[in-house]
Amino acid sequence: MVSIKDGDEVLFIDPTGKTFLKKICMMSFHTHHGVISLNDLIGKPYGSTVKTSTDKSFIIVKPDLRDLLAKKLRRGPQIIHRKDIGLIITHLGLTRDSVVLEAGTGSAYLTSHLGSICKKVVTCELREDHFKKASENIAALGLEKNVDYRNIDVESAPGKDYDAIILDMPKQEDIIPKVCGKLKIGGRIAVYSPCVDQSMMVCRALEENGFIDVIFMECMIREWGVNKGTRPNTMMLGHTGFLVFARYMGSEM
Amino acid sequence: MVSIKDGDEVLFIDPTGKTFLKKICMMSFHTHHGVISLNDLIGKPYGSTVKTSTDKSFIIVKPDLRDLLAKKLRRGPQIIHRKDIGLIITHLGLTRDSVVLEAGTGSAYLTSHLGSICKKVVTCELREDHFKKASENIAALGLEKNVDYRNIDVESAPGKDYDAIILDMPKQEDIIPKVCGKLKIGGRIAVYSPCVDQSMMVCRALEENGFIDVIFMECMIREWGVNKGTRPNTMMLGHTGFLVFARYMGSEM
Amino acid sequence: MVSIKDGDEVLFIDPTGKTFLKKICMMSFHTHHGVISLNDLIGKPYGSTVKTSTDKSFIIVKPDLRDLLAKKLRRGPQIIHRKDIGLIITHLGLTRDSVVLEAGTGSAYLTSHLGSICKKVVTCELREDHFKKASENIAALGLEKNVDYRNIDVESAPGKDYDAIILDMPKQEDIIPKVCGKLKIGGRIAVYSPCVDQSMMVCRALEENGFIDVIFMECMIREWGVNKGTRPNTMMLGHTGFLVFARYMGSEM
Amino acid sequence: MVSIKDGDEVLFIDPTGKTFLKKICMMSFHTHHGVISLNDLIGKPYGSTVKTSTDKSFIIVKPDLRDLLAKKLRRGPQIIHRKDIGLIITHLGLTRDSVVLEAGTGSAYLTSHLGSICKKVVTCELREDHFKKASENIAALGLEKNVDYRNIDVESAPGKDYDAIILDMPKQEDIIPKVCGKLKIGGRIAVYSPCVDQSMMVCRALEENGFIDVIFMECMIREWGVNKGTRPNTMMLGHTGFLVFARYMGSEM
Repeated sequence: MVSIKDGDEVLFIDPTGKTFLKKICMMSFHTHHGVISLNDLIGKPYGSTVKTSTDKSFIIVKPDLRDLLAKKLRRGPQIIHRKDIGLIITHLGLTRDSVVLEAGTGSAYLTSHLGSICKKVVTCELREDHFKKASENIAALGLEKNVDYRNIDVESAPGKDYDAIILDMPKQEDIIPKVCGKLKIGGRIAVYSPCVDQSMMVCRALEENGFIDVIFMECMIREWGVNKGTRPNTMMLGHTGFLVFARYMGSEM
Repeated sequence: MVSIKDGDEVLFIDPTGKTFLKKICMMSFHTHHGVISLNDLIGKPYGSTVKTSTDKSFIIVKPDLRDLLAKKLRRGPQIIHRKDIGLIITHLGLTRDSVVLEAGTGSAYLTSHLGSICKKVVTCELREDHFKKASENIAALGLEKNVDYRNIDVESAPGKDYDAIILDMPKQEDIIPKVCGKLKIGGRIAVYSPCVDQSMMVCRALEENGFIDVIFMECMIREWGVNKGTRPNTMMLGHTGFLVFARYMGSEM
Repeated sequence: MVSIKDGDEVLFIDPTGKTFLKKICMMSFHTHHGVISLNDLIGKPYGSTVKTSTDKSFIIVKPDLRDLLAKKLRRGPQIIHRKDIGLIITHLGLTRDSVVLEAGTGSAYLTSHLGSICKKVVTCELREDHFKKASENIAALGLEKNVDYRNIDVESAPGKDYDAIILDMPKQEDIIPKVCGKLKIGGRIAVYSPCVDQSMMVCRALEENGFIDVIFMECMIREWGVNKGTRPNTMMLGHTGFLVFARYMGSEM
Repeated sequence: MVSIKDGDEVLFIDPTGKTFLKKICMMSFHTHHGVISLNDLIGKPYGSTVKTSTDKSFIIVKPDLRDLLAKKLRRGPQIIHRKDIGLIITHLGLTRDSVVLEAGTGSAYLTSHLGSICKKVVTCELREDHFKKASENIAALGLEKNVDYRNIDVESAPGKDYDAIILDMPKQEDIIPKVCGKLKIGGRIAVYSPCVDQSMMVCRALEENGFIDVIFMECMIREWGVNKGTRPNTMMLGHTGFLVFARYMGSEM
């Protein structure tokens, strides 16, 4: 049974499901329904219920990746949606042994998923403001060990024989010929773009630069509700971006 | 640079993109275009091009998870589609530290993705024929270290305080009250079902058994082609299954 | 060339595309950009441009069905979406010779489309408040000649040998056995419902009451934008209702 | 009650729902299950059941538009799908009073729907082989009274002040400036294209030629099944074409 230690970050969940992330220290958490002394929680097992000074119950939970992303990641540039991150992970066949190169880092949302799964992520962000925020986010999530983040363009990224490259940046059709040599032969690429005309150019650039198995797709999720009757929600997210996947055969192919 | 060793499995890719998985040993690979002596490949770096006896080129590549799944996993029961596996990974927030419980194992396709990412997967399959095939698949993919596979019902699964549970089996609404106690407080569940009436019952069972943040969704992918014009393919996969995600707050909630 | 007559309703369109429906009479239309004397327009051809007192141009147009629906139909109960009306028209094979029965009338939005196309529409609405609003809407759109609207339940509707029946009301599974005899043999039915569990019961009721060719579907439209890049809009209408279509073979089938 | 006359075309429906269209004359219909003397049917009401010489029952039905399209329309070029025809009808606001111009005629499938609803359809087809087949189809469906079909390019079409124009042909961006003057001010256009890059050019051409309210959309239908469980069919029609709708404000706008 895992118990809370001094300095831990814990997630408080109130009975309505609302969540609050707090660091355990010599201080108090002032909720809307009274005070919880954080110091008193040290040594209690995760999953415990604690009472506030006004006798309201909170559950204390060890925050997981989704909690940390929701509570600690400061948003800047548009992040890649969870559904598209899922497709990237499975279409690139990522595992704990994967070494991947990413550009651009953006808010480091995708980076955080990759860094929580893969052996090594090298991520490049050219814009200084984005890089600064991304650096803070990677540190806040405790992912420095697996993530090498750099304020450089992706062509200058160190390393070679990457298992996979992920591009989410402008002018990808110009970048592909410059970075494909960093992939190992048989490695895979994922290219994300909001616009269909951009993805059209990406498909052509991949075919001209030694890639095979080019797949161009989009993913839609629809949420449903179960109340008096069962039906999809009226509004859905109709579009985030297009994804192009391909496999690298080398420049001589 | 990684070189081929005796006993390695390597992937051969012909110029059309067709792939063949072979074990390196004292034997030959008889292709449609002549013979390759496998023994001669030992010591060559992965990514090399080799010629057959009739001078046709093959590229030799270290197989990745997707190659192994495509070439070595013997299919039995219906597998969960890659798009839905992606959603499961990101909605459960799975990382290299996750400990998860799965039922049923089926062909071990989802199991293989989970076992390649997570610290530990305990997977249960009641049907003996499926269990036998799944065991062979897990062994063939070299995932025994991370996957504990058992021919038992999920209620009898060992362990507790799981980070996540994934259910893909009949009568999930009856199983949920029996297995939810194996989740840690704050842990997450994913329930996959082909039919909407089944998912309706799952939503209700989750709400009655201490889960919050119940999300009921489906995912559609559409592939596009870029030929003379750019357009979605005429036919698409319109449905695989519905997914319900939720978070466990404990039975007293 | 069609010219404006006293008493005509005309549509004014300003340069931004904003529209205003006005009746031509001895009065003025006070726009945000000056006054137009409506009387002066008599005898001018439709399609003319007129100037306000402050020299701003408006185009005057004969309102079409969509203008009348947008400007004159008072909304009450939820209307059926244009995409679903289109499916109803084409799946029922409606023409200028069709005689159709509809329940319930609701706001008479679908009724207005049907009444503009078909020879005769008999429409039933049980709720008095809806019936009153629907009656006003049908009159306002000038469709009394083709639409027979009644404040009765659909089982009491006059007439038989209908070419088609359209149901958009609660408890359709109970109504189907009571109204199917009003269809001619070979006639068609469309049943609209927001909830999937409702449509499940409708499919069964149709199969048990002499219908063949049961088709159960939903329709999604996605709008795109063409600005700096071409992409679907972020949000889309994910759901309106499910439609079930079938063909009646008689109660002895 | 409508009875069968000599020369009528009637639809026979067997107990499995299979349909056969036959002309009533001094002859017999040899089914897989015995013979029906067509002459004997004269004077019987539509909806009757008839027995074959081997005592199998067929229902005889007056064919409706959908039967005639399914049984008598000879297919040539790709037809517009029923779902897209529905959108065209409702987005153009077509009624029994509408006068519309169509190019190209193709197999006359859309033409037949339009000709069954609208006051007048002028349809142009440049390819002689398509024109010949379309002419036969329009005649076979008995739509000559409402459809004026011509083997000319749409720019040469007679008439003006059309309520609506529908384009389904190549190079629409070049045609739009040449035909938009045939629309009445306030009239509407629908442009159908399989490819997104084509529709991008159409949107721009419409905006440059006096159109407002440009809407660019696609429509997806998904069919469901109700067997042991309720679920969408695995495969769906993922794409037919993109539709662009707009309203004409005149060339001076």
